[in-house]
Amino acid sequence: MADFKVPLRDIRFSLHEVLDYTTKCESLTGYEEVGSDLLDAVLEEAAKFVEQELAPLNAIGDQQGCSWNDGVVSTPEGFKEAYAKYVDGGWAGLSADPEFGGQGLPPSMATLVSEMAGTANWAWAMYPGLSHGAHNTITAHGTDQQKQTYLGPLTTGEWTGTMCLTEPHCGTDLGLLRTRAEPNEDGSYALHGTKIFISAGEHDMTDNIVHIVLARLPDAPKGTRGISLFIVPKFLPKADGTVGARNGVACGSIEHKMGIHGNATCVLNFDGATGYLIGPPNRGLNCMFTFMNTARLGTALQGLAHAEAGFQGSLDYARERLQMRSSSGRKNPDKPADPIIVHPDVRRMLLIQKALAEGGRLFVHSLAMDVDIVESDASDEIKGRADQRLALLTPIAKAFLTETGFESANHGIQIFGGHGFIQEWGMEQNVRDCRISMLYEGTTGIQALDLLGRKVIGSQGGLLRQFITEITDFCDHHKGDRNMANTIATLKTHCDEWEHITTQITMRAMTDADEVGAASVDYLMYSGYIVLAYMWAMAQATALNALASDNCTEEDFYQAKIATAKFYYDRLLPRTRSLVATMEAGADSLMALDAEHFSF
Amino acid sequence: MADFKVPLRDIRFSLHEVLDYTTKCESLTGYEEVGSDLLDAVLEEAAKFVEQELAPLNAIGDQQGCSWNDGVVSTPEGFKEAYAKYVDGGWAGLSADPEFGGQGLPPSMATLVSEMAGTANWAWAMYPGLSHGAHNTITAHGTDQQKQTYLGPLTTGEWTGTMCLTEPHCGTDLGLLRTRAEPNEDGSYALHGTKIFISAGEHDMTDNIVHIVLARLPDAPKGTRGISLFIVPKFLPKADGTVGARNGVACGSIEHKMGIHGNATCVLNFDGATGYLIGPPNRGLNCMFTFMNTARLGTALQGLAHAEAGFQGSLDYARERLQMRSSSGRKNPDKPADPIIVHPDVRRMLLIQKALAEGGRLFVHSLAMDVDIVESDASDEIKGRADQRLALLTPIAKAFLTETGFESANHGIQIFGGHGFIQEWGMEQNVRDCRISMLYEGTTGIQALDLLGRKVIGSQGGLLRQFITEITDFCDHHKGDRNMANTIATLKTHCDEWEHITTQITMRAMTDADEVGAASVDYLMYSGYIVLAYMWAMAQATALNALASDNCTEEDFYQAKIATAKFYYDRLLPRTRSLVATMEAGADSLMALDAEHFSF
Repeated sequence: MADFKVPLRDIRFSLHEVLDYTTKCESLTGYEEVGSDLLDAVLEEAAKFVEQELAPLNAIGDQQGCSWNDGVVSTPEGFKEAYAKYVDGGWAGLSADPEFGGQGLPPSMATLVSEMAGTANWAWAMYPGLSHGAHNTITAHGTDQQKQTYLGPLTTGEWTGTMCLTEPHCGTDLGLLRTRAEPNEDGSYALHGTKIFISAGEHDMTDNIVHIVLARLPDAPKGTRGISLFIVPKFLPKADGTVGARNGVACGSIEHKMGIHGNATCVLNFDGATGYLIGPPNRGLNCMFTFMNTARLGTALQGLAHAEAGFQGSLDYARERLQMRSSSGRKNPDKPADPIIVHPDVRRMLLIQKALAEGGRLFVHSLAMDVDIVESDASDEIKGRADQRLALLTPIAKAFLTETGFESANHGIQIFGGHGFIQEWGMEQNVRDCRISMLYEGTTGIQALDLLGRKVIGSQGGLLRQFITEITDFCDHHKGDRNMANTIATLKTHCDEWEHITTQITMRAMTDADEVGAASVDYLMYSGYIVLAYMWAMAQATALNALASDNCTEEDFYQAKIATAKFYYDRLLPRTRSLVATMEAGADSLMALDAEHFSF
Repeated sequence: MADFKVPLRDIRFSLHEVLDYTTKCESLTGYEEVGSDLLDAVLEEAAKFVEQELAPLNAIGDQQGCSWNDGVVSTPEGFKEAYAKYVDGGWAGLSADPEFGGQGLPPSMATLVSEMAGTANWAWAMYPGLSHGAHNTITAHGTDQQKQTYLGPLTTGEWTGTMCLTEPHCGTDLGLLRTRAEPNEDGSYALHGTKIFISAGEHDMTDNIVHIVLARLPDAPKGTRGISLFIVPKFLPKADGTVGARNGVACGSIEHKMGIHGNATCVLNFDGATGYLIGPPNRGLNCMFTFMNTARLGTALQGLAHAEAGFQGSLDYARERLQMRSSSGRKNPDKPADPIIVHPDVRRMLLIQKALAEGGRLFVHSLAMDVDIVESDASDEIKGRADQRLALLTPIAKAFLTETGFESANHGIQIFGGHGFIQEWGMEQNVRDCRISMLYEGTTGIQALDLLGRKVIGSQGGLLRQFITEITDFCDHHKGDRNMANTIATLKTHCDEWEHITTQITMRAMTDADEVGAASVDYLMYSGYIVLAYMWAMAQATALNALASDNCTEEDFYQAKIATAKFYYDRLLPRTRSLVATMEAGADSLMALDAEHFSF
């Protein structure tokens, strides 16, 4: 694959020009000073780091994978050294509290760096990425002593963290989990059980790993209301903060997986491991759901990452590979054939990738800014609105951007033809690495139930109405703009339809609960296409505005935005037509067959 | 993955009940005696063979892959032994001429066995599968002496064959190929050049490999009109038919690929290799296109194979895995959770797989029967119609069934949740193995241009009208049937729309040639959904008929067919709505951007 380049110009377009990042930071308590100069300096340094240190390890990580030997996990060549540079560069604590050694920048800055790192090398980026869950849990629910012990090394990145949820018999349905925590005399607990699919659960990159483990206390109620959280460090920290005795948690094996080979997916056996209760007993799931949006946004990012990687790889190839002549007359008469980018169907795939990556970037950035607001805005009303917006849009971002990221990654293979199937070009790795994103942190189906059942119907339409009002306000603001007329009209029609369909499904669900699950994934994808249509409308408006200015020096850049917006409305938004039809079909034909009659 | 079972009941439904296979054989010269007893006996024996010998090697083949050592390629453990049993069982020559040791059954019988073998283990099935191209080429274009030398061992399977087309700089665009053939004094040729992506190009399963190689004669015109075909055996056969001296063709390396690891994808270096011209000079591409339909049908089969494998694997899992309760009340009160098949979205994915696999099976079988007719029907008129039907439907089958096969394979992962990403369940292998099917034998984009450009517009709509007449006749035949009324009405509407859209695109293409490429893939997928709607309408009619009979003993089976047909019309056919919208959008937004403005 060609060298990965961070799309800095597009990131700046999104943040500065469309979303007005630095102005928004001014109203955030503690982040008033994050001006565009600081932002750009950080972005440029981060881009250098990921291009030079992480991108070159992406293929190596896939080919070597991790290895397990008697409980010890070795990461691929260079991973450990790159991680050391990451820690030395202060990247781990970019958005963390200065009290514990962080840089004190808004959370969105960490998201932007994760976007870059993840696009360069997703498997590597998961090691620091997974620490956020542990870090956030201890920040929000830890005692002072727990904070003093763990937050320092988690902030600097000297230690990493994990979240240990899944067990062999339960993933989605955590109410079934069996790992148990028995009280020790000293107030700690002895944990017994097996966790699976623990990403970065064991590795050789840091001196210690801090596991946050879901387990049951002896007297815990059944189901999800009997789950507590425990801190279980790989090595028990000593009073002076250094690493002490090995704890009773061991990596029993690592999984052989389709992709993300560079990241160790571990079976962890807890055999009387010492754990410390964090947060109130039996409220573990609630404590954990606090960060659900952040974790899911982190996975939405993965969809964007693979869309961008697929786009970059296949765009380079499509410009260079000579094959056949253009149907509308040869474009490259001196050569034996034209570059394949002349062919309409190759362009179709490239433009799908481009529209999804650039539109997805705007979507992710706008949510990352909501996270900042929820954390730090001075106004409770603004905070509340951002929180509602995040609640509605996070499941859409997670599922829609990973599903469409997978599509974009697959177009990457397709544009390469047979070569796309071969390891050396990187396109097939991009697909394999991407595939997990639709599964972990809640499958697409789970996101869809969360969206339609909990968020939309659960708020009696309130969350949806707030967001549609935001879009309608945007439309009203641009209603006099002749160049935006088609876009605005189409967007408004879709918003009306969105409300109408929501009402229809809600009515049907009153008499048949299965109607929610029957419509949910189509509803989520439908919603995703409208959200991205809104993003592209904003991009178009911004580009038109820039072109109208007297001193525009980047006409081609802005014209490309306008052309891509038109492509999106012509070629991607119409996917809603089929989704409307299938949502309207209802649950009947899904529920008709008995389970034993699916095959004979 | 659970043990693979050949879906014999469904294969029989397709052949005997819907497509009336044995009656049709009666009018085929030489195949009048293929009664249902013979057919069923062969199918059952073949099912035993693939279930016992091939399915157990599928995961092994993926994990071990092929290895290359100084030109020698070793296949995975057990592949060679299974191949020997295949040859001993007479499977290789099932549909071949008895004069050369074949069993003299119609070509469709070989397709049916390929379907089974390919579903059990696609990578293995490619070794005998690839021989057909060489076998057919020599049968159609070889001299008597060439036939005597090669057809015997190719028929029995003692030797395998390959087709050597692709070169590093050309795949789709064969006009660019450079391999050259220089005349030797004895009438043979010395071939020089490098071929890549040669499936089964080198292996340890047979004593000899017969390569059919595309190359240029010294005085050949440029482009596609200067390509000739050559037989280049790995070992030069001696006069007595045994294997003689090693020829100058060597395997330089094998590719590291996303999937089909058990099949060796070879770089073949021709270094003065002795070759024998087959067919007229400079007419190689034309000779080869004779078998294009057969080869593409063989790949359409792969889509069906992976759809079926994904369906079987995930259906077993969905019935067993307990996770969450049904929204409409617990279905499994004695257990801690319900099996996931109760959830509407899991059912949605299973039914998509089922509808695509069973509908795809009908589609492939109906084309396999057309191949029989083209080869052997007594009536030239019937032959001609079948040939026209094949010309239109083969690119649809190849691209539509592989695209939807990939979708089905992916649902297989999704239904397994995180476990789907892990090697041991087989679902991720099924996706990786499937991915190549949209690339080789002409990518989806190439099939789409063939369909819309050459077949539909090229015949001035004639091929399409013939097929729509076939559907309309079916609709007229069932017009009085109340139970078919919705299906028939929907099918007719879609046929009208199909004609209308075809006219629209044809008109636009008159002024802008890029309009064909801009619409082509959407047009192909649109056409595919209508073809499958027709298949499901036939299945529904057959099932209704069976249920109406007094002695129906398989009510559940036929009711399941009717329910799946309804699902198809409710949930899959509506995908045409978006395809219509994107086709209507035309080429403008695809062609607007200059190649250098796709990124900044």
